[in-house]
Amino acid sequence: MLHQTSGKPLFFGRLAEGGQAMAGLQRSVGRRVLLQQIRHDEAVPRIDLAEKTGISRATVTTITAELLKAGLIEEVAREGETSGSKRGRPKVDLKIRGAARIVAGVKISHRSFSLVLIDFEGNLLAEHECEMSAPTLSAEDMAQELRDGVDALAALAGKSRKDISGVGVGIAGVVDAPEGFVHWSPSLNRRNVALAATIEAAMGVPVFVDNDANLVAVAEKSFGLGRAVSDFIVVTIEAGVGMGIVIGGELYRGTRGCGAEFGHTKVHLEGALCRCGQRGCLEAYVADYALLREASVAGFDPQAGRQAERVVALLSAAREGDALARSIVERAGRMFAMGLANIVNIFDPQLIILAGEQMQFDHLYAEEVIDEMKKSIVQIDKAPPEVVIHKWGNLMWAKGGAAYALDRVSDLALEELGDNAD
Amino acid sequence: MLHQTSGKPLFFGRLAEGGQAMAGLQRSVGRRVLLQQIRHDEAVPRIDLAEKTGISRATVTTITAELLKAGLIEEVAREGETSGSKRGRPKVDLKIRGAARIVAGVKISHRSFSLVLIDFEGNLLAEHECEMSAPTLSAEDMAQELRDGVDALAALAGKSRKDISGVGVGIAGVVDAPEGFVHWSPSLNRRNVALAATIEAAMGVPVFVDNDANLVAVAEKSFGLGRAVSDFIVVTIEAGVGMGIVIGGELYRGTRGCGAEFGHTKVHLEGALCRCGQRGCLEAYVADYALLREASVAGFDPQAGRQAERVVALLSAAREGDALARSIVERAGRMFAMGLANIVNIFDPQLIILAGEQMQFDHLYAEEVIDEMKKSIVQIDKAPPEVVIHKWGNLMWAKGGAAYALDRVSDLALEELGDNAD
Repeated sequence: MLHQTSGKPLFFGRLAEGGQAMAGLQRSVGRRVLLQQIRHDEAVPRIDLAEKTGISRATVTTITAELLKAGLIEEVAREGETSGSKRGRPKVDLKIRGAARIVAGVKISHRSFSLVLIDFEGNLLAEHECEMSAPTLSAEDMAQELRDGVDALAALAGKSRKDISGVGVGIAGVVDAPEGFVHWSPSLNRRNVALAATIEAAMGVPVFVDNDANLVAVAEKSFGLGRAVSDFIVVTIEAGVGMGIVIGGELYRGTRGCGAEFGHTKVHLEGALCRCGQRGCLEAYVADYALLREASVAGFDPQAGRQAERVVALLSAAREGDALARSIVERAGRMFAMGLANIVNIFDPQLIILAGEQMQFDHLYAEEVIDEMKKSIVQIDKAPPEVVIHKWGNLMWAKGGAAYALDRVSDLALEELGDNAD
Repeated sequence: MLHQTSGKPLFFGRLAEGGQAMAGLQRSVGRRVLLQQIRHDEAVPRIDLAEKTGISRATVTTITAELLKAGLIEEVAREGETSGSKRGRPKVDLKIRGAARIVAGVKISHRSFSLVLIDFEGNLLAEHECEMSAPTLSAEDMAQELRDGVDALAALAGKSRKDISGVGVGIAGVVDAPEGFVHWSPSLNRRNVALAATIEAAMGVPVFVDNDANLVAVAEKSFGLGRAVSDFIVVTIEAGVGMGIVIGGELYRGTRGCGAEFGHTKVHLEGALCRCGQRGCLEAYVADYALLREASVAGFDPQAGRQAERVVALLSAAREGDALARSIVERAGRMFAMGLANIVNIFDPQLIILAGEQMQFDHLYAEEVIDEMKKSIVQIDKAPPEVVIHKWGNLMWAKGGAAYALDRVSDLALEELGDNAD
């Protein structure tokens, strides 16, 4: 009842009936519905749009004409039917016009930016990675460095920053996305930063900021495994553990913009000290630093070096059968399984996507961990939710930022069409 | 954007435009919207309905005429304006017609049924409690005993069972509500029971079954503290710990119908044995039996007697300052606070309602527990969600069942109106 069979949500919308006041609203909702339907279908005959959306043929004709005129969509010859009948109009589909807009997506990692540039159709135009001058920056310095990164990104595609219609930025931490406000982030040297506004001022382009794991969920919904699923959870594993929740086809952010917190849910009363200052957080058992803490306490601190190298050495030792290393790694896996089981008990989602890139977290993606999770959920005589591992690198995270920017830029483009119903 | 300011969700609905195929759908959605708006407003001028729902005045006139004719709503003189102008029509509001339908709600407790009878307006007509012959029954025996209970309930209001249009039943356990199917319940002697169908066969009345904590959430949304809030969580405390989740004004049940499980989320890896057979569940730390287990291990097992009496004795000893008893009770409180903090981290809801009746759980409602929860959530410079304690007895839980039945019976009543758009 709530969703189309495709898994795409129907749109919240007042019942559109007659009346002056409703006309503008109807029109703008109709435009949004049609643009999203065309985006979803990739290429669709005009005549199918009425049936798929429930919008009358006459209105579909009017609105698609507007969208064509504004250059947001275009007509293409239907595949396999290029010849058509000898007479009459050639058969055409409608599709998003890639050249209509370009948007950028950024993921802010521990000490680097990953950037992608995509067109209005979602095609990748360029990708770029660059170092941050420090792992923790002021908002102003971050804005400056991001601007340089976006300039370099645009140049790779023979464009300039001014050609970009919007930039979506994913950052670790607690983010109020609608406000573009960062309550706290490990990448910023202050709490309570109006980050979107600061970057926008430096960039001269609309900027949209969200938690990085939320943007992975957006990417999965837009381009990935979540396209056909209305309720799913993404758990991201990097240095920290993140989560994105999609319910009814929409990202669920919580009331204060700080929902979907998973890494700092507690798995042990008064447990291990977490970097957040509290005790017993999931991250305090599964993050890099947690593994190294155990290793050092147990007198097993693999060769000197940078933290990442030491973690890799610990994990290799575990794989090679070192009992102490295995004990450390296995406990992290069991804690992670317990956290996942809690998420399943609470949400009972269709699908859980474990997303992340680094080889170094293979022990958390392990079959034993997922089996352990399945044993720890409430047991009913029905299959547990599907768990899929989706490894992707920072550039794919950045694509989540771009997908978010694409959503918002689409809305802005439709607003530019104005309110006229005629 | 997603919600009206009242906190009531806008309705999912295809854009209603012209076309034969849409007319029936439009009409049925319009009826549902208007009936819900009238129910929400209690009494509302016909002319306000168009503005509040976005449905055209002409359609409001047509549909309200249908609803009046079907006896689902009625006209009442507007309060304070009974005289009106000397000439012209008296000013009237529309309201739900209480006599249109009556529905029953049932809560199945440890060994008793609590029942309420309400009319279509939600007015309480009768309430009744009766013993179950055993704490665990077959579905058939439960159906038989419930039928007798409903007969007795109806008689109290001078009615018979056949006058009842629907019965909503809340039961502890894992329930697939849309299917009326119980995966598992402590009150049933088998797993996988088509409970709604079994009771319906015995009763000859439509029966709707859901998890009991979900129905408390429905009651809070329909009659209680959740009326003006779109995202809230209800946590119920009885012998077990339950949860109901309302997101976007709708109860969230999960994909397999077994979401919102809280009592069996794990708060300790390989922790205390739970009655479900797993280890480390929240209930294994906060339920009655968990307290008594601790008491007996510690050599402090307050005087003999039934379990409930022993728990009361333990709690009194704690209040009177007995160190061992306090240690047991305080740990339960800390575990409960940790579980609550996890829920807040995951959902970031507007409001948390702690619902339950028994004095015996006062230690879990305690200010220290709520303070502890607030300290254990992710800290941002914004107030944490509001936590409200709402003590209500079994009859109020039963009212949740009645509210659920009312929703479903309203839908059935509207279906009876048929599909004709004219």
